[in-house]
Amino acid sequence: MIQAPSSAFRDCRPLDNDDDFGEAGLAGRHKCGVFGVYGDPNAAALTALGLHALQHRGQEACGIASYDIVKNSFQNERHLGLVGDCFGQESGAIQRLTGSVAIGHNRYSTSGRVAQRNIQPLFADLKSGGFAIAHNGNLTNARTLRDRLVQDGAIFQSTMDTEVILHLIARSMRTRLVDRFIDAVSHIQGGFGLVCLTNKKLIGARDPWGLRPLVLGQTTNGAYVLASESCALDAVGAQFIRDVDSGEVIVISDKGVQSHKPFATIPARPCVFEYLYFARPDSTMHGLNVNAVREELGRQLAAEHHVDADMVCPVPDGGNPSGLGFSEASGIPFKFGIIRNHYIGRTFIQPNQMSRQRSVSLKHSANRSAMQGKRVVLVDDSIVRGNTSRRIVEMVRAAGAAEIHFRVASPPIRYPDFYGIDMPSKEELLASQMSIEEMRDFLGVDSLGFLSLDGFHRALGQPEGRNNKNPQFADHCFTGEYPTALIDHEDEEEPMHEQLSLLKD
Amino acid sequence: MIQAPSSAFRDCRPLDNDDDFGEAGLAGRHKCGVFGVYGDPNAAALTALGLHALQHRGQEACGIASYDIVKNSFQNERHLGLVGDCFGQESGAIQRLTGSVAIGHNRYSTSGRVAQRNIQPLFADLKSGGFAIAHNGNLTNARTLRDRLVQDGAIFQSTMDTEVILHLIARSMRTRLVDRFIDAVSHIQGGFGLVCLTNKKLIGARDPWGLRPLVLGQTTNGAYVLASESCALDAVGAQFIRDVDSGEVIVISDKGVQSHKPFATIPARPCVFEYLYFARPDSTMHGLNVNAVREELGRQLAAEHHVDADMVCPVPDGGNPSGLGFSEASGIPFKFGIIRNHYIGRTFIQPNQMSRQRSVSLKHSANRSAMQGKRVVLVDDSIVRGNTSRRIVEMVRAAGAAEIHFRVASPPIRYPDFYGIDMPSKEELLASQMSIEEMRDFLGVDSLGFLSLDGFHRALGQPEGRNNKNPQFADHCFTGEYPTALIDHEDEEEPMHEQLSLLKD
Amino acid sequence: MIQAPSSAFRDCRPLDNDDDFGEAGLAGRHKCGVFGVYGDPNAAALTALGLHALQHRGQEACGIASYDIVKNSFQNERHLGLVGDCFGQESGAIQRLTGSVAIGHNRYSTSGRVAQRNIQPLFADLKSGGFAIAHNGNLTNARTLRDRLVQDGAIFQSTMDTEVILHLIARSMRTRLVDRFIDAVSHIQGGFGLVCLTNKKLIGARDPWGLRPLVLGQTTNGAYVLASESCALDAVGAQFIRDVDSGEVIVISDKGVQSHKPFATIPARPCVFEYLYFARPDSTMHGLNVNAVREELGRQLAAEHHVDADMVCPVPDGGNPSGLGFSEASGIPFKFGIIRNHYIGRTFIQPNQMSRQRSVSLKHSANRSAMQGKRVVLVDDSIVRGNTSRRIVEMVRAAGAAEIHFRVASPPIRYPDFYGIDMPSKEELLASQMSIEEMRDFLGVDSLGFLSLDGFHRALGQPEGRNNKNPQFADHCFTGEYPTALIDHEDEEEPMHEQLSLLKD
Amino acid sequence: MIQAPSSAFRDCRPLDNDDDFGEAGLAGRHKCGVFGVYGDPNAAALTALGLHALQHRGQEACGIASYDIVKNSFQNERHLGLVGDCFGQESGAIQRLTGSVAIGHNRYSTSGRVAQRNIQPLFADLKSGGFAIAHNGNLTNARTLRDRLVQDGAIFQSTMDTEVILHLIARSMRTRLVDRFIDAVSHIQGGFGLVCLTNKKLIGARDPWGLRPLVLGQTTNGAYVLASESCALDAVGAQFIRDVDSGEVIVISDKGVQSHKPFATIPARPCVFEYLYFARPDSTMHGLNVNAVREELGRQLAAEHHVDADMVCPVPDGGNPSGLGFSEASGIPFKFGIIRNHYIGRTFIQPNQMSRQRSVSLKHSANRSAMQGKRVVLVDDSIVRGNTSRRIVEMVRAAGAAEIHFRVASPPIRYPDFYGIDMPSKEELLASQMSIEEMRDFLGVDSLGFLSLDGFHRALGQPEGRNNKNPQFADHCFTGEYPTALIDHEDEEEPMHEQLSLLKD
Repeated sequence: MIQAPSSAFRDCRPLDNDDDFGEAGLAGRHKCGVFGVYGDPNAAALTALGLHALQHRGQEACGIASYDIVKNSFQNERHLGLVGDCFGQESGAIQRLTGSVAIGHNRYSTSGRVAQRNIQPLFADLKSGGFAIAHNGNLTNARTLRDRLVQDGAIFQSTMDTEVILHLIARSMRTRLVDRFIDAVSHIQGGFGLVCLTNKKLIGARDPWGLRPLVLGQTTNGAYVLASESCALDAVGAQFIRDVDSGEVIVISDKGVQSHKPFATIPARPCVFEYLYFARPDSTMHGLNVNAVREELGRQLAAEHHVDADMVCPVPDGGNPSGLGFSEASGIPFKFGIIRNHYIGRTFIQPNQMSRQRSVSLKHSANRSAMQGKRVVLVDDSIVRGNTSRRIVEMVRAAGAAEIHFRVASPPIRYPDFYGIDMPSKEELLASQMSIEEMRDFLGVDSLGFLSLDGFHRALGQPEGRNNKNPQFADHCFTGEYPTALIDHEDEEEPMHEQLSLLKD
Repeated sequence: MIQAPSSAFRDCRPLDNDDDFGEAGLAGRHKCGVFGVYGDPNAAALTALGLHALQHRGQEACGIASYDIVKNSFQNERHLGLVGDCFGQESGAIQRLTGSVAIGHNRYSTSGRVAQRNIQPLFADLKSGGFAIAHNGNLTNARTLRDRLVQDGAIFQSTMDTEVILHLIARSMRTRLVDRFIDAVSHIQGGFGLVCLTNKKLIGARDPWGLRPLVLGQTTNGAYVLASESCALDAVGAQFIRDVDSGEVIVISDKGVQSHKPFATIPARPCVFEYLYFARPDSTMHGLNVNAVREELGRQLAAEHHVDADMVCPVPDGGNPSGLGFSEASGIPFKFGIIRNHYIGRTFIQPNQMSRQRSVSLKHSANRSAMQGKRVVLVDDSIVRGNTSRRIVEMVRAAGAAEIHFRVASPPIRYPDFYGIDMPSKEELLASQMSIEEMRDFLGVDSLGFLSLDGFHRALGQPEGRNNKNPQFADHCFTGEYPTALIDHEDEEEPMHEQLSLLKD
Repeated sequence: MIQAPSSAFRDCRPLDNDDDFGEAGLAGRHKCGVFGVYGDPNAAALTALGLHALQHRGQEACGIASYDIVKNSFQNERHLGLVGDCFGQESGAIQRLTGSVAIGHNRYSTSGRVAQRNIQPLFADLKSGGFAIAHNGNLTNARTLRDRLVQDGAIFQSTMDTEVILHLIARSMRTRLVDRFIDAVSHIQGGFGLVCLTNKKLIGARDPWGLRPLVLGQTTNGAYVLASESCALDAVGAQFIRDVDSGEVIVISDKGVQSHKPFATIPARPCVFEYLYFARPDSTMHGLNVNAVREELGRQLAAEHHVDADMVCPVPDGGNPSGLGFSEASGIPFKFGIIRNHYIGRTFIQPNQMSRQRSVSLKHSANRSAMQGKRVVLVDDSIVRGNTSRRIVEMVRAAGAAEIHFRVASPPIRYPDFYGIDMPSKEELLASQMSIEEMRDFLGVDSLGFLSLDGFHRALGQPEGRNNKNPQFADHCFTGEYPTALIDHEDEEEPMHEQLSLLKD
Repeated sequence: MIQAPSSAFRDCRPLDNDDDFGEAGLAGRHKCGVFGVYGDPNAAALTALGLHALQHRGQEACGIASYDIVKNSFQNERHLGLVGDCFGQESGAIQRLTGSVAIGHNRYSTSGRVAQRNIQPLFADLKSGGFAIAHNGNLTNARTLRDRLVQDGAIFQSTMDTEVILHLIARSMRTRLVDRFIDAVSHIQGGFGLVCLTNKKLIGARDPWGLRPLVLGQTTNGAYVLASESCALDAVGAQFIRDVDSGEVIVISDKGVQSHKPFATIPARPCVFEYLYFARPDSTMHGLNVNAVREELGRQLAAEHHVDADMVCPVPDGGNPSGLGFSEASGIPFKFGIIRNHYIGRTFIQPNQMSRQRSVSLKHSANRSAMQGKRVVLVDDSIVRGNTSRRIVEMVRAAGAAEIHFRVASPPIRYPDFYGIDMPSKEELLASQMSIEEMRDFLGVDSLGFLSLDGFHRALGQPEGRNNKNPQFADHCFTGEYPTALIDHEDEEEPMHEQLSLLKD
């Protein structure tokens, strides 16, 4: 239960309407996907297809808002569940979402049940008219801004960072909506890819550090598309135009595409986790194909941590491409030795019910017949808490493997993320608590190898490895070097004008 | 579909989550019931009992908010449906609503489906802490205030008048919460009975005109109770203390009951419809028992419009007590000749499906065996549109009545209400469109008699009849004399300082 | 939990799908309403209207089955809830129930939640084709027959008596369906009003003792209607033709109405509870209008148990007509002193939560202002367990009544019913456990009077009172004289040929 | 709409209760998974784990029945959805399913929505006591038997083949339950793996042709387990004992495991589709590991249909192991060029909404960056209708592949299956309508190669290839040689004694 001088509040409703005002104070880390279309009569249907292609970025809830110029009316549909279920034929939702402009959002499942009012896009009836917004990422000063806004008389209805942006727009002193939007964005810090909808415009914005991705494309009939990843452009038959720049605000209207760059130039530092495991393999970001990067991570890993073995077995699905790269570089045969069960429900049998069978995994199973007596190289993309890895090792051992060599296609993760990747606290990160040898022992493997920081950057197309003065990527989880201040998390006052200085003029 | 320069917005969700931002712009007329308890360990259970006793004031939705000092936490449960279903044993809701202070609200069904976010109590996390509010009545300047607040950067999440009050409190320049609340209330006009909850106080307020009722009581163990009607005090075993005065703000805390009268004295004019048909017969308002008033209306009616007949038959349930009074005064036997079916569902067979049987009524049926060949006096409390009355007459005629004399226990209703009574527009009011003779013809009765305005006031305990200079009750629906300005409805600018002048100082 | 050598079985599903194979072994007493139409293009809509008029006979669930000759297809819709909710416009159910023949059923709420598969009409695909059946009443040998059928290889899917009839039809050795139906009915004992549907016929049947009612009518366009009560004929604009005779089987087809009387003649003994409180006041059964009977019961009661008092106050709604009759005969004014709350939900606050307020009633409230200091005659239709009566007395006393005289419009109920009236066991019947004086003391009233058995029969149109040799009505609950053997309840073997002897030939 | 001299019947209920009596007359082809446990205090939890491991065999619905000897009571929980959702912690279902014996069932989604009453296990209260049954497979004489049973007075409640077995047991003339079960099974034809539950026994049975799999295992604490595949034994930590023999009936009780072989010996012919794509890769059937078979199919395919190319790209997930085998044997690099989206909802945007983008696939996407300008070998397990293959080829072509060579790891499928594999009719099978060259043209590929029938058998461990006189596997879909008569499908009378002749004595 929440301690509440600031009046924590619990609004319980049955079934899926359960509202919990106290989920971690603010509903923090949302690793999500956004999509927007301007100028297609089937805007909502395209948005549903785009969100479906971005489903890996969030499976808990999804929503689409559209504007219909004929009816002069906004529509919004927000649901718990997968895009294909919420916006499928039977739902009738797409038919209700008329109009040629639309934006959409996939929400990632963090923990607990999501409240209906915490599903995006958010909508507000501003003095300039209706405004809908969808947000991928996490702000590092949302709590601070929210407290200030409440002091100033604002009433919040959700617990999402995104609502802070809405209030900042509503209260901006500027006149034109785009200026008000830029004014609002200049106050927020962290990672964000935003798509917004008015009755005249589709607006996109990417954080000044380029932490969260956003791309621009165009369909064959001329409609413009904004999406978190290029794979969503392919899904709707749109051509990739370019990545939205870090700190860029894109305004699409009947005058075409206008680019605003209101913020001081900051070198772009895309988040390494998009490449490592978050983005879809067929997406391309900043010119790098994600699947190709992952294969190369495996090759670099094989070069750094060779071992004699009978088979390379990826931990599916994350380890598949780096496992293949490892196999190619090492010459050790690639085998599907671990089967992944894709049918995990939301909740399942409690561990204590099955405590006798500690090695039981609901998600993976080892092919005993393939592994019996073999020397196995297990390749995975990363180790976070280490519990899953440990269970998999235990399972492979029980399946009769003679030797197990664990290879990880990234450096040890020692620091948490605050920009929108769902990551546990420092205390829960295995590599922040143990040495390599302790981890090897904890996992119960014969050998353990992590890719080096330079090897990692080499796979990301930096032949010289990492530029320590000016790192090319946001790799703070390996290094602790955060690109932004962490205002909410550092318990320090950060005067608002400092962020305002991000504005050019 | 809504026309929307001010951006009408439709947020559709399946099943009961359907949200329609456009239901008549603002969800206007809510004829509701409120209840609040301070100082009982079973505060939520008492509130549920109180709301159940007030169920006749609103059946569509209900909610209870409580504050638990031990947990320092607010809880809120808001549901579609009857109190007995939403807060019954199986729901577990009462168990979740811990604490010794609670407020509750019944919402009246207007039209369309209610959105989850339009169920009360509303809650906001103000800078002073949590604040919950429940509202019975209707504001006549809500739209005007809302527009101003949106201009000022406020973001509205519901379409209820009540949210305007919340924003006014959040933005008040005063310091102490009670002062901020009074400041907010000083801006609103119309009919209202409010109960509010903070982590320290239960607050009640009644509009300066005394349009909507509110009473104060106390249970045997000393807990204070606020309720729309005295019948809810009986339901929880509380003693009636007094009616809350018009314009009074009651603050209940560990210091006991404090009364604030911040507004200039305005003569109280209780709404006649509470006595005529809205309040429960066993309630007593301003010293008048509702059932006794209704019987007396029937007696006055018999005196004014005598007729020779075989039976007095009330139109159930509204006409029962005045029918009995008519029978007493006239000596004509009282008979239950019309049966009311209490099991009407929300929606039923479309009229056009059954067009062949025009006389079919789903709500009433006539006892053919009792009426065959008889001269029948039908007594009802009022005539609004006249369609139901006409159908009933048709049904009684078909059941074989020889003569039908229709008697109405109120004057003709010619003007709409704007203070919380669900009433159609002027054009739909039968008596505003027709003369008495035209109505008699429309209804198809042998004679038709309405109670006179003076007769009506006599039944309300004014032996001299109506005081036309200083009317004792709000009878604007008969007379067109509205006690307040109708700002939203008159399309005229009403400067805010004028309402502020209601404040004493 | 069920003890189960015969394998009690629990099939639990969430929400409304909850299936409990063990609810009292067999789901016994169903006090229900049935309706059927032959020959109207809107057969299902008429059936919905008819079921709505019969809603007082069962509110828990309802269903309609229809046959469409064009599609050569049966449809069935069965739902939990009121007719108006399940078959209202939004449901679309009526549109799906095409065809010109339909039957329907209302199910009474006994206790616990009803399983979907226990909602009627039941349907089976017999060798003669599809067959749907709806049943009002209760069989006294259902358990015995069911055990025999299971021994013979029958598989039961519901726990309803009605399924026994289906299996008997399926297994009959006769050839024609009507003969098979009569053969099946000849095996069952107890009270029943049946309506059945095939692809060619509408069939109705009434038990040989005439315990459960069934009437025949015809609409203006010639369609035939069967219904539990005549009020349902009025509801669809049909003319009453006649009561179906006791033991009669009515077959309606394109050849018109055929009457079969396959059973030995047994004097009809309609159930007194239909007149006393179960049927709707505007229904007429065997020539007696129900409301008129009830008023006359009140007059007889006043004659037998006069008392000086200030007001006659009915216990609503059951006591209303007999209260009026009592007032008429005694000259004591009739007053609505007790208010009934019609908004009781299914479940409500547990008594123990509110134990401090023993006198709190959720269903009734007393009008304190009317009763203060008055000598009150309370009139009710009957006393069953006595708990409600006692609470009402307590409430009236708390409201300040000076004297309370309780008058009951029926003789003491001392024996349970087994033919379809929901009645507690003998041990729970107040009058079977106490003398009149003990009851007076238990209820806490100043005097108590029950109508005599002869007075009761006089009110039912028998000027000589009860014919003890050949009672005119089934009044076993007063007298213990059951018209049929109680096979399931007597733990005795009743050879099947004995019942077969009911057949004429 | 159904044509119905045999009275097709439509029982519509809202939401998930939708019952359609007409789904293809009988709900035919159920490709399902079964599981049973005898002698573990957590029998239901083990069953849930086992069903989860068998989730690939059916995702639409699942159920578990258990027997609790202490309560002497059966429980049954049947739900729509995945095992992890229906039997997860929040559901509480496992807690309700007490007892040490349990059986479970996964139901495969065919078409339309499944009715609640068509979810297994089925339960019946037979004269011998309660009996629950779960069935994997499809009977080829179910319709014929059902018609005969209806003629004989049986009433069916579901449309499942399985209910036929229940009725046959209920009507058997034998005395002991096991004999009655064997008697019933002797009448049915087709593919089946059955697990059944009484209050004393767990019973398993496999069809005489060994078409559907069933294995026996034992947990470390001695409990016996029956399952469709060995992977479910691994999931609960049970040791594999052996495949149940074709035609074997296994009875597990407190006397241990008893084997009955009541049927004449017929050579076992396991279904090739279990190996080709239905079973999980880590299962082992009749001594053959499924993954190893699939890799070997790829190697045989490479040997038969070599081509020069740049990459071997499997069609995921089915083509993964044979693609790897093809790569190994051919030396062409293996690449993940096609991404599979696992998040397809039940329903999605209608094709016509998106008709402009014919190449859009909701399930697969091509990695443009990997395929641009490359010669690609696509490897899939089979071609059924060919539509998906054609869309994938189109997608790969659009992604820029220079050449596309399609290789199929099975012979052309020319004949439908009737034993439980969901397969379209002959007319819809691409290979039954076209020559190889026509198919190559239809698919739009540069070359097309299917594995030969002998190559296929070689991969299944038959070095000599197929034994045409006595085929080692049920490969009727390639050859048209069905192991059993197809009674329902041949419109011919098959006297019941013929099947009885399967009994030894």
